[in-house]
Amino acid sequence: MVRRYTRAITTPAAARSPRDGARPFVSLLTDWGLRDPSAAICRGIILGVAPDALIVDISHEIDKFNIRQGALMLWSALPYLPVGAHVAVVDPGVGTERRAIALETVRGDHLVGPDNGLLLPAAERLGGATRAHLIENAQYLLPATSATFHGRDVFAPAAAHLALGVPLDHIGPAVDIDELVSLDWPVPGVADGRLATSVVYVDTFGNIKLSALGSDAHAAFSDLATGDRLVVAVGVGERPRRRQARWARTFGDAPAGELLLYEDSYGRLCLARNQGSAAAALRITNDVPVLVTRASGDAPPEDDQAAG
Amino acid sequence: MVRRYTRAITTPAAARSPRDGARPFVSLLTDWGLRDPSAAICRGIILGVAPDALIVDISHEIDKFNIRQGALMLWSALPYLPVGAHVAVVDPGVGTERRAIALETVRGDHLVGPDNGLLLPAAERLGGATRAHLIENAQYLLPATSATFHGRDVFAPAAAHLALGVPLDHIGPAVDIDELVSLDWPVPGVADGRLATSVVYVDTFGNIKLSALGSDAHAAFSDLATGDRLVVAVGVGERPRRRQARWARTFGDAPAGELLLYEDSYGRLCLARNQGSAAAALRITNDVPVLVTRASGDAPPEDDQAAG
Amino acid sequence: MVRRYTRAITTPAAARSPRDGARPFVSLLTDWGLRDPSAAICRGIILGVAPDALIVDISHEIDKFNIRQGALMLWSALPYLPVGAHVAVVDPGVGTERRAIALETVRGDHLVGPDNGLLLPAAERLGGATRAHLIENAQYLLPATSATFHGRDVFAPAAAHLALGVPLDHIGPAVDIDELVSLDWPVPGVADGRLATSVVYVDTFGNIKLSALGSDAHAAFSDLATGDRLVVAVGVGERPRRRQARWARTFGDAPAGELLLYEDSYGRLCLARNQGSAAAALRITNDVPVLVTRASGDAPPEDDQAAG
Repeated sequence: MVRRYTRAITTPAAARSPRDGARPFVSLLTDWGLRDPSAAICRGIILGVAPDALIVDISHEIDKFNIRQGALMLWSALPYLPVGAHVAVVDPGVGTERRAIALETVRGDHLVGPDNGLLLPAAERLGGATRAHLIENAQYLLPATSATFHGRDVFAPAAAHLALGVPLDHIGPAVDIDELVSLDWPVPGVADGRLATSVVYVDTFGNIKLSALGSDAHAAFSDLATGDRLVVAVGVGERPRRRQARWARTFGDAPAGELLLYEDSYGRLCLARNQGSAAAALRITNDVPVLVTRASGDAPPEDDQAAG
Repeated sequence: MVRRYTRAITTPAAARSPRDGARPFVSLLTDWGLRDPSAAICRGIILGVAPDALIVDISHEIDKFNIRQGALMLWSALPYLPVGAHVAVVDPGVGTERRAIALETVRGDHLVGPDNGLLLPAAERLGGATRAHLIENAQYLLPATSATFHGRDVFAPAAAHLALGVPLDHIGPAVDIDELVSLDWPVPGVADGRLATSVVYVDTFGNIKLSALGSDAHAAFSDLATGDRLVVAVGVGERPRRRQARWARTFGDAPAGELLLYEDSYGRLCLARNQGSAAAALRITNDVPVLVTRASGDAPPEDDQAAG
Repeated sequence: MVRRYTRAITTPAAARSPRDGARPFVSLLTDWGLRDPSAAICRGIILGVAPDALIVDISHEIDKFNIRQGALMLWSALPYLPVGAHVAVVDPGVGTERRAIALETVRGDHLVGPDNGLLLPAAERLGGATRAHLIENAQYLLPATSATFHGRDVFAPAAAHLALGVPLDHIGPAVDIDELVSLDWPVPGVADGRLATSVVYVDTFGNIKLSALGSDAHAAFSDLATGDRLVVAVGVGERPRRRQARWARTFGDAPAGELLLYEDSYGRLCLARNQGSAAAALRITNDVPVLVTRASGDAPPEDDQAAG
């Protein structure tokens, strides 16, 4: 009766087939907000096509039009969700010439959304994209397609049909994976004793997610151990703000209010403050550059007295 | 195996019977917010009565006590949801003499909530109300009914029973549909070359929803075509703000930051700004009057330089 | 076909067994917010273990690190939810020495979360805790356990297994219930004609939830009846703000804008303002002390003119 939680879900690259007899699974990620009825309407459309579908909302609070943030959330979440059809809509170009696409991944999922780079990082995390098709076959769309709500009229019904088992190549003509629109993703600079990165997301706790992974920190700083003192220089120009931070395993490793650098539960490098908001303390926003170095000697960095 | 998405869902007026053997469907729309546990409690109540129910939250972020906004959201969403029991609670009069009602629609739904006008526009959109009953039979309510949480004690359990198939006339005595409380809905003024309307909702993108429909714009302006220049005068008094806007099919038809007037995906007339918030640009709030006319000559309206 | 809503759900102390053949039920309550994908990831983990689980989100908007607020929400919601496994995570000590526990209640539920006091008030409300076990058996956790996301790696998979029927003593070693960490809960002071209490929560309407129950008000003020005039003194020090409030059954018992004291639908004493926010009117925050006395004579309290 009891099922063991399989390793597969934390092994994104592993190929997994949808379970025979399993209920169709659909996830939703958008920048629509939860006050408007848009997300509920897509749930209604999906249940109209696939009444037995399991639907999970990843988030509808992506910053408006922030494709890279949506891509990062999708990259974080999908390895932990069942194999299925995943709809993502951060779509400033809705109704224009931008293409509507569905990708297939090595793990066996379908990723459905606009061809603007939103889907590709998550597809990589699920083993890579194996093929892509345009969403064009009217048989799988709403009868009347508006120019401003493709989530409802195009993406949700197409994903519901894919979740039911409609073959991908019935959805529309194939497109070359290498011709899909990709995102500019800030690449961290790793050198011995020095890691140049930047802010990619501030979570609801004020933890600062960086473009670097935890592995980049280990590559830059050999023998990095809990409690090691580092210096983070935030911002650019003549006078970036410099703060001391401890390398930590979890928040409680640092006294309340102190900054810590750690590898988060997704493998990403993060800057946090125990029981507080690092983003508020550092007055930080997206895309701000962050330079990490080792602390030298016993003196705190010059600006550190102003921390918090 | 694969079901075609039926036209019926986009044809609100069509009569549709609940599917035989289908799972009971219940939707929820309230002004309770998502921080409080109220919505979860109603889900629990519904699942206690109907363990197999499918439940969809339309929105719990309706502005507090804003009955008209709730009515508009319900009008927007219900045509896209399965036939079922739909609970709506924006209820400043909870516990007073205002009546608790359940309506039946031509499409076959039951709409459940306070008799304050909240339910009627959506009932019209689903083909019209066929009959209405008071919710009074204690057999279908919680055993103890509080004076301040009828969503939990009255509306949710009544809706769950209706979704299970309890006949409407078991819920309580019939009431005359024509005696139900109705809303004041602002009626647009359509003349040749002139459309007087007002703001009914600002969505999470800052798109401004007007009381007029797209069809009203076509009635006021013959041969309206994408790219046509219009003037919107926002506000009243000696000096309403005047701005130029383009008639558009979608956001991307206008350069980033420019105003556009368009028919939204529900058929409503809207004022938007490509990749921006029209509401922020125009500092607009609910109920502000908006007058639309044709732009004359090549000169922009006098205030247009201040736009944005 | 039609099931009567049973009294059991509003009788928290009654022992109830999970229904034979019922779908596994899991609820979630956290301080993670809805923008981050954390809650969706836990849903995915639960569905990976128990694909037929019914999952209800109680709230993810608990104030960050506010264990007492989380405990209060759980106390409010659980009596209305089906018997099942309830995950609660407000966990400033994640990854430290604080223990991960699962409790069993008299009603038959399992409460799963950190041992920091979060779970105990709700356990009391469900008849009391019968036993508690540490969550330690790796068989029921994710294969790799992070130091910062035990919701995903520990609590969600453990709860899903408990909901499926895994016996509690398989989860880890037993711990003494009397040694669990408990919360400081502010105890109201009840005297004849005088009730000293404090603010424990402000709901999304601005209604002020107090540490006292409605029964405490009846104990302090004999023959308390709708319309009775009371005085609330808010704050401490030399000059608490004093306001008149009416004892009321529901909001509409008071004119719009007037303060009212009432017993809310959970049995708690609350201070509200009809169609307005009492918290905004009184500029009130958590933990502020509130003293309630009878109004004497016909004169309003000295500060009352400033109300609103």
